[in-house]
Amino acid sequence: MRIVVVGGVAAGMSAASRARRTDPDATVTVFERGGEISYGACGLPYVIAGQVENFGDLIARTPNQMRERGIDVKVRHEVSGVDPSARTLTVHDRQSGRSVTEPYDRLLIATGSSPVRPDWARTGLVGVHVLRDLQDGLALKASVKGARRACIIGGGYIGLEMAEALREQGLDVTILEKGPEVAGRILDRLDQRRLRAEVEKHGVEVRCGLTVEALTGTHGRVTAVQTSEGPVETDLVVIAIGVRPNTALAEAAGVSLGKTGAVAVNARQETDVEGVYAAGDNCEAQHRVSGKQVYIPLGLTANRMGRVAGVNMTGGDAHFPGIVGTGIFRTFNLGVARTGLTQAEAEALGLDAASVDVDSTDHAGYFPDAAPIHVRMTGERGSGRLLGAQLLGQPHSVKRVDVVAALLHVGAGVEDLFGSDLAYAPPFSTTWDVLLVAADRLRRELGGEATPLRR
Amino acid sequence: MRIVVVGGVAAGMSAASRARRTDPDATVTVFERGGEISYGACGLPYVIAGQVENFGDLIARTPNQMRERGIDVKVRHEVSGVDPSARTLTVHDRQSGRSVTEPYDRLLIATGSSPVRPDWARTGLVGVHVLRDLQDGLALKASVKGARRACIIGGGYIGLEMAEALREQGLDVTILEKGPEVAGRILDRLDQRRLRAEVEKHGVEVRCGLTVEALTGTHGRVTAVQTSEGPVETDLVVIAIGVRPNTALAEAAGVSLGKTGAVAVNARQETDVEGVYAAGDNCEAQHRVSGKQVYIPLGLTANRMGRVAGVNMTGGDAHFPGIVGTGIFRTFNLGVARTGLTQAEAEALGLDAASVDVDSTDHAGYFPDAAPIHVRMTGERGSGRLLGAQLLGQPHSVKRVDVVAALLHVGAGVEDLFGSDLAYAPPFSTTWDVLLVAADRLRRELGGEATPLRR
Repeated sequence: MRIVVVGGVAAGMSAASRARRTDPDATVTVFERGGEISYGACGLPYVIAGQVENFGDLIARTPNQMRERGIDVKVRHEVSGVDPSARTLTVHDRQSGRSVTEPYDRLLIATGSSPVRPDWARTGLVGVHVLRDLQDGLALKASVKGARRACIIGGGYIGLEMAEALREQGLDVTILEKGPEVAGRILDRLDQRRLRAEVEKHGVEVRCGLTVEALTGTHGRVTAVQTSEGPVETDLVVIAIGVRPNTALAEAAGVSLGKTGAVAVNARQETDVEGVYAAGDNCEAQHRVSGKQVYIPLGLTANRMGRVAGVNMTGGDAHFPGIVGTGIFRTFNLGVARTGLTQAEAEALGLDAASVDVDSTDHAGYFPDAAPIHVRMTGERGSGRLLGAQLLGQPHSVKRVDVVAALLHVGAGVEDLFGSDLAYAPPFSTTWDVLLVAADRLRRELGGEATPLRR
Repeated sequence: MRIVVVGGVAAGMSAASRARRTDPDATVTVFERGGEISYGACGLPYVIAGQVENFGDLIARTPNQMRERGIDVKVRHEVSGVDPSARTLTVHDRQSGRSVTEPYDRLLIATGSSPVRPDWARTGLVGVHVLRDLQDGLALKASVKGARRACIIGGGYIGLEMAEALREQGLDVTILEKGPEVAGRILDRLDQRRLRAEVEKHGVEVRCGLTVEALTGTHGRVTAVQTSEGPVETDLVVIAIGVRPNTALAEAAGVSLGKTGAVAVNARQETDVEGVYAAGDNCEAQHRVSGKQVYIPLGLTANRMGRVAGVNMTGGDAHFPGIVGTGIFRTFNLGVARTGLTQAEAEALGLDAASVDVDSTDHAGYFPDAAPIHVRMTGERGSGRLLGAQLLGQPHSVKRVDVVAALLHVGAGVEDLFGSDLAYAPPFSTTWDVLLVAADRLRRELGGEATPLRR
């Protein structure tokens, strides 16, 4: 059995490792276009910030370590073509410049995603960056030295994490956001405003509702972002307006894409082309709350999909369980977490949803390090189903979002959360944890009969 | 409608407040034996430690505040008798020394629990303490001044919290524990040992497997604990060997106790005597994992029971949802949490259980403040049912126990936890949160078919 994996980061390496373990007789080969494999891309902002010392710290495994485990990793190898009827790949060795044809029995396409770069971003100016892989990180870190001002285009996860990172490096930071608020696709409006207030409190200028028209510079170096509201002078630009799935290879193989534009897979991570699997940031996933296929590329999802693919490619039977839209990030001293659907997302799906907002403290109020925590919780009228939650608070306190995520995973009701025997002692929470307080208000807001999942 | 509540702390005041809200026309009277109501007894160790400044900080509401809300609170009033056929109480005013007869339509017995004091504890010696109410706290705090050495008898929640508190106050501290390890009824053996190591690391002497035979002193002041292994000299003794339910009033009313020795109630918090309800630390509760009635008196449980009773006494219909045995505490820099059943508890119930132990970090390993976290997770062979978990780690990281508690509440399987879309970013967890790693190992350990709660 010849297993070939294209892409050696989260999904690809998870799949290769799992395939290796499941079938010791299989040949497992990984082709990675870049120079490194198996690195934690989510850690890049913290290296820029100086909170993690080296980019090398983000690397979990080297190619040599993988080879010792019997996985043939080939870096700087780009797969440029595929013939699914012959089950062969055309592989271009970027160092030697040669191309060879490689056979496969099972192929995993784990080509990930790329930062969105609109036409205005294609300038060739020095000082314009995206943040996706280790090379991007190195280039950005080098640019930070000598820069005084930075413009971050896009106020999503990466943009907000980068705002902290660049402030930590002493830069004047401006976020330019097209939408009416930051975190537009992450939170409901009230929490967006609170989040912006936190970022502004740390000296970041946030400008929303404007569009970027061009990047301009002198002597080949960026000096300004031209916007619908005039120029913003800067020494450094980070473009963080989202990612799109790398689907070229899948499309070349005749694989169908879903409505989201990402690769369509079933729960076994199979595409609609025999012998071809896909996993990671190039794929869509099923959202268990909405029931829809969605494109929400994140680290755990990629790892999990890769693992499922690795099992199935070697004759096992594993199923990707879907996601519930959980996300978490930190910016400055604020932790932000969400799971399920926001009120806006629920309404867009035509659900009869209601939300409550609760402000409490994360520990007993009299306890020395008690800090504010805000929970917005959303449920469905009629069914009493839990739909989602958004949390803002001290970073470690918003990891509570996992309680809601786990209950969403099993389709639980607001009443189930309210009835849960959550842990209480003064250093850990209020007697009624803020999640219970929110669930209580929400169940009353939803009205109707309580519908526990089971007794 | 005359609602009378006996006991003005967690369950009693929750019930009174809820009754007041549910039926604005009812008369709501609370008799409290002590001088304060509505205080957070769980906070007492932190006042002793000096981490919370005043005992007064623990008081959530004063009698006057409650009276302003239309609840007639009478402190220093002890209910000494009850006639359930006439629906009257005999109430002794401890200040005036007078007794009166008070009628009721619905009676809530929320008399709480008392520290266990064996015969050897009844000495009258100065410097011998328990820690249950504010007065106990004040007395202990006064004793700490001038003391150099302290003996804590009992290595459970309170004993371990007090070990930290008394070390913080600069005392030499010895824990004397009858069982073979500390936290004997909280954790499985391995975690008991790890916990003891943490306590010892902070200079606490822990002596297990010995029994206390007497407390001895000179000039009316305690100077030694006489044990089966000889005397231990001390200036101060804290007895923390558990609590027992205060059932005298319930028994006088003809109310049945359960097998645990606490008051038996149904999910509406009704006793088997008409018009008489019970809630809080004097009651047993249903354990949703074992299905048994258990006696695990804790703060959230008491508040929740009180609330349910308050609704039902005023004509509503609320149900106590049961507990899953969640507990959490901090000692020194270690957070300890548990929920569900330990392996030992599961075996004692005749369940075919298996457990796994996982050591990981609470954040991405490369992240600056990543710290060790240990998870022991227990499940049932055959059914794949999740049975429980135990966590040791940085205090804020063990609040993750709530994820397991919520899933236990709905009867979920290990597979459900493994499939959950938990939050990941480097400042918050490893890509696979330690709970997912534990669930993965456990599902493989349990073998058999995956049994998700629902798809």
